[in-house]
Amino acid sequence: MTSEARQRQDRLIRNAFPIFEDTDLVYLDSAATTQKPDCVIRATREFYENDNANPLRGLYELSLRATDAYEDARRKVADFIGAKDPNEIIFTRNATESLNLIAHTWADDNLKPGDEILITIMEHHSNLLPWQHAAKRTGAVLKFLECDKKGNITEEMFRAALTPKTKLVSMTQISNVLGVRNDIKTFARIAHENGAVFSCDGAQSVPHIKVDVCDLDVDFLSFSGHKMLGPMGIGVLYGKMEILEKMSPFLTGGEMIEYVTRESATYAEVPHKFEAGTVNAAGAVGLGAAIDYYNAIGIDVIEEREDYLTVLAMKELSRIPHLNILGSDDPLNHHGILSFTIDGVHPHDIAAILDSFKVDIRVGHHCAQPLLKYLGSMSTARASIAFYNTENDIFRLAEALKTVRGKMGYTD
Amino acid sequence: MTSEARQRQDRLIRNAFPIFEDTDLVYLDSAATTQKPDCVIRATREFYENDNANPLRGLYELSLRATDAYEDARRKVADFIGAKDPNEIIFTRNATESLNLIAHTWADDNLKPGDEILITIMEHHSNLLPWQHAAKRTGAVLKFLECDKKGNITEEMFRAALTPKTKLVSMTQISNVLGVRNDIKTFARIAHENGAVFSCDGAQSVPHIKVDVCDLDVDFLSFSGHKMLGPMGIGVLYGKMEILEKMSPFLTGGEMIEYVTRESATYAEVPHKFEAGTVNAAGAVGLGAAIDYYNAIGIDVIEEREDYLTVLAMKELSRIPHLNILGSDDPLNHHGILSFTIDGVHPHDIAAILDSFKVDIRVGHHCAQPLLKYLGSMSTARASIAFYNTENDIFRLAEALKTVRGKMGYTD
Repeated sequence: MTSEARQRQDRLIRNAFPIFEDTDLVYLDSAATTQKPDCVIRATREFYENDNANPLRGLYELSLRATDAYEDARRKVADFIGAKDPNEIIFTRNATESLNLIAHTWADDNLKPGDEILITIMEHHSNLLPWQHAAKRTGAVLKFLECDKKGNITEEMFRAALTPKTKLVSMTQISNVLGVRNDIKTFARIAHENGAVFSCDGAQSVPHIKVDVCDLDVDFLSFSGHKMLGPMGIGVLYGKMEILEKMSPFLTGGEMIEYVTRESATYAEVPHKFEAGTVNAAGAVGLGAAIDYYNAIGIDVIEEREDYLTVLAMKELSRIPHLNILGSDDPLNHHGILSFTIDGVHPHDIAAILDSFKVDIRVGHHCAQPLLKYLGSMSTARASIAFYNTENDIFRLAEALKTVRGKMGYTD
Repeated sequence: MTSEARQRQDRLIRNAFPIFEDTDLVYLDSAATTQKPDCVIRATREFYENDNANPLRGLYELSLRATDAYEDARRKVADFIGAKDPNEIIFTRNATESLNLIAHTWADDNLKPGDEILITIMEHHSNLLPWQHAAKRTGAVLKFLECDKKGNITEEMFRAALTPKTKLVSMTQISNVLGVRNDIKTFARIAHENGAVFSCDGAQSVPHIKVDVCDLDVDFLSFSGHKMLGPMGIGVLYGKMEILEKMSPFLTGGEMIEYVTRESATYAEVPHKFEAGTVNAAGAVGLGAAIDYYNAIGIDVIEEREDYLTVLAMKELSRIPHLNILGSDDPLNHHGILSFTIDGVHPHDIAAILDSFKVDIRVGHHCAQPLLKYLGSMSTARASIAFYNTENDIFRLAEALKTVRGKMGYTD
């Protein structure tokens, strides 16, 4: 792509995001949450202005419109991740709740003392703590598959971690710290051959690469709306229908029952069985609009832009003395995520200095303390790129980073 | 108030709600969800346009603004219900999740076989099913306090239902079917004298009457944002600090920990301990704007308007032959909620006919099947009033209802 064509594409995309009217803002924290295009903000607003009612319950036109809008969003999500049946899409609050749902229902129903849950050392706390609790409740053992120091997990390493007792594997597709991508398709196949169920944390992958649940053949996929241009407060749990149908409900209350007596209840069909109480229809509609926007741009274009910017960022940051990038040496195995340290500088100071340049990055443990400990660190800085970033954002990041050691009193 | 003054007030209020630009719409389903004033829609939009970042985690200015906006909303909620400490406010998805949180954590930590959970027959499924499950998990016994056929629960009835084994009482303040108000202050006092913890379902009360948690002296109060002008996907659990501090977390994941190892975790302070994953900051901001709007109008004005309209509606509906209103004979013990049946007509037909008049009401079991069964019914129609309704809405409702029997072929 010519430089001119890229800049035209930049303008087209940036114009869709109201927050970038502040042209000085360099936002490089999209792995925490993404900015929202106007179409998402507008879809949510228009739902409240025109279609707002409690969906699924009402027989009047307004409520039917709200129901249609909600179920339409479910279909969009299903199509986006290649699910065969829209009813395999459960709307949750966020990926965290999706993972908790599996760990409370599937795990409690299926695990017994001595069974093994396998996760990796690179999991976000959201894909770790629920399994610690599930293990405590069921007597199962939580086991950790360690990556190498660059973040790689090979097929051999994965096979070696499985045992006949492994009943569930839960693994992130892309690490939120290293940006490294796990070969989910291969690992899911091997797990299945081993008789284990495979849960994939897609919080960092679904927003950035093409994810097809049938191609990957995962049993569960969890992700958040707010990390993929959608509103806060809406997330997704995909599950294979034959598994969801057998699972107990998690939260209980209105809208998830067929019939209730004083002593017990019969539950509604999937997905409603898992959506207790008034659903976040406006959130789902906003997520649907985000998916429309993804489709309009094209996930291939998004991947190309993010890869291009990641390559550029790796090149620029590699030139900065005393700056160390974690993870793969290959920029294409970073998926927009660059975690780094600067010798002799606390990450909090990096963030503070970059903030003075209006360059927004994240520092800390990134909700992945076991991984950081394993890598010998307490805290890192992390710049994370989305397709709405530009070359200029990367140059501004690099320029700001170059000043850090000097500002901290180092003279080299 | 003069008729002219009331109409002026009507116009002022109606103008704040974009959906009422459709002047033909008669919305009488506010107990299911309320419509949203422009200030709420705008606050959410402006958050995304100006302040959007992942709160609580970032050290840069944008994230600090997002954090401030989120914590500011928490303070507004605390002030609105008279909580002493903003940290006693936990943001959940909705009242259903709030009640599930108590039933999963407080109940699992504190109940043992033979202990009794006391709820009433008039509870919404959200304040029933979580206790059925808690009882199953803990071996506790779920007991039902029956109201009389008008919905009344007297102090004597309440005392008679308590036993030395009663460890928790969970009760709605206002019934979503009958509109009747329980004397929470008295019942909470008696429950405490009996050594029980008192949880109040405020989903139908907080939006309509002044609720002060210190005056009521409840241990927990649950309610939903979307039923009080706020966005969908945000709810509240209030809990007394000394109780919350002792409770285990519910959902686990990011943002609710101090430190995580492979085997275990130490949790963050209340309220963050209970808010796993990325919070719905935009939802909280929208709820904060809703509370600002409540305060600007005045909860006393809201109560006066809703009482006035309920009295009018009772008068109009009582004149319609074959129409039977459930619950109290006193309109002031209906709090805007009128459930009714029409002899010989299925409630679904009532809804369909009213829909043709663009009058939106709810029909069904109202997520309260045990109450309906107790009252000898399977289904009722329900008109529910909010302060943004007008006399004209009530007249339109009555006019439409007068046609129902005729349209079903009855000639009387």
